[in-house]
Amino acid sequence: MSSGPVAILGGSGELPLLLADRLADAGRALKILAVRGFSDRALRARADAIVPLLDIRGALACLEDWRPALVTLAGGLSRPSAAALAGAFSAVRNRDEISRLVARGDDNLLRGVIRLIEDHGFPVVGVRELAPELLADQGYYGSRRPGPKDEASIAWGIRLLDAISPFDIGQAVVVAGERVIAIEGPEGTDRTLARARALRGRRLFGRSRSGGVLVKAPKRGQDLRVDLPAIGPRTVANAAAAGLDGIAVASGFTLVLKRQETVAAAERHGLFVVGIDAARFSAEAGDADG
Amino acid sequence: MSSGPVAILGGSGELPLLLADRLADAGRALKILAVRGFSDRALRARADAIVPLLDIRGALACLEDWRPALVTLAGGLSRPSAAALAGAFSAVRNRDEISRLVARGDDNLLRGVIRLIEDHGFPVVGVRELAPELLADQGYYGSRRPGPKDEASIAWGIRLLDAISPFDIGQAVVVAGERVIAIEGPEGTDRTLARARALRGRRLFGRSRSGGVLVKAPKRGQDLRVDLPAIGPRTVANAAAAGLDGIAVASGFTLVLKRQETVAAAERHGLFVVGIDAARFSAEAGDADG
Repeated sequence: MSSGPVAILGGSGELPLLLADRLADAGRALKILAVRGFSDRALRARADAIVPLLDIRGALACLEDWRPALVTLAGGLSRPSAAALAGAFSAVRNRDEISRLVARGDDNLLRGVIRLIEDHGFPVVGVRELAPELLADQGYYGSRRPGPKDEASIAWGIRLLDAISPFDIGQAVVVAGERVIAIEGPEGTDRTLARARALRGRRLFGRSRSGGVLVKAPKRGQDLRVDLPAIGPRTVANAAAAGLDGIAVASGFTLVLKRQETVAAAERHGLFVVGIDAARFSAEAGDADG
Repeated sequence: MSSGPVAILGGSGELPLLLADRLADAGRALKILAVRGFSDRALRARADAIVPLLDIRGALACLEDWRPALVTLAGGLSRPSAAALAGAFSAVRNRDEISRLVARGDDNLLRGVIRLIEDHGFPVVGVRELAPELLADQGYYGSRRPGPKDEASIAWGIRLLDAISPFDIGQAVVVAGERVIAIEGPEGTDRTLARARALRGRRLFGRSRSGGVLVKAPKRGQDLRVDLPAIGPRTVANAAAAGLDGIAVASGFTLVLKRQETVAAAERHGLFVVGIDAARFSAEAGDADG
């Protein structure tokens, strides 16, 4: 069993290929199942199989065939329509359970997928277990450092992320001082930063010395095997375009994709990027909440 | 003193004129101070004076001249740049206090303006005191009724609004079941609904029978003399365009602008509009939060 390959169920973005490279470098046997309509061309070119998102039977058939020792979900799998999803699931699972699942947030949905795979006998692990080097370290990336105002923004952002955590939304917020500029919804970080940029353009938030900070952290109680918050060079460029001073991520629980390029982008744009011990902030927030 | 006029400090949107009409109909003496760049043409045409947003001295001079019995702030006054604001305030107030003020959210900023006006001897009241008939009643507007799924969405939305309330953001959220589609930031309700519409277009939230609900309620502890959440015919049209099933507002604490047109729009688009007792939901949320 443990001699089987690692199966990557790959969605959109760079993570699936980055992860495949890491595992291949480490000499692990690999199988890649690309999800049609989400995975990009490069992943599909390297995939052992390609299935539509909703072809649950097809995906399970691949797994039965490959007998992987471990399965991991990597990359974005944006939410399909509830009706389509219910239709696809219905051959496998009870309809009522599916409706409950799709009525809730992303996290619950992905948890359902994980449970389904594990019910078929394949253990699901996260990027954390497979390639912990992709996770943010504590400390600074690049030469810039957050100032006292930035530190205040970061603490406020972590408190806010904590508060909305039970609602299965938002792994990212943009804050400037105690001013909340944007809370990320299903649209993702890039669009959230675009919104912050537009607000800046409309002068709806100030040009104080604290230009604002993007703060990212996983939801409390989130299944860390899926959907870890991630940043990369594009995140840095978008944060710079929004006039932000920097980016703070929860160390150990946030992916830093293309670390070198990310640091280079931070240097080029003059932004700080810092991996913080979010637990510390959360504890403080808990105390203050009373 | 109580024989003086009511002074309306009027920003953007329809509220200042609607309020002026109500007060005029009730036989109250009126003075209108329109804020340049925010108030629309119709308000400026009827204004007794027009001042730039940052001309605090000019505004106070008008009030000294008119000796109003009551002052009210009505309509939107989007946030200017912090630097511009600090410059304008500085003649009147201590610089440090201003920086603290502008580093915080809208609510704190407006509270500062109110305090400034009251320090000069003019009591500030809200629309609630002056024209309570503009506030949402409890119950249904129009013939549509929320279904059980909508009721669940509303309860979830109120809980979320409660959770983010301490962060001085968000008087509106869009939820479908327990799925959070969007949290309103400084961009306002219309743009938040546009975002929900775009997400629907990208199929990032499902076409379940519950198309989603816009939920609006004031922040807990909000100074109800300013910036009450509001809906009107345009809100209904935008909610319909986003594919929502309806709108729920906190009764007694949300403005319904152009009530008849709002009901007509709800009927035309097949949306429910309901004024709810938000306190009831909040109490439940408080219990559940533990």
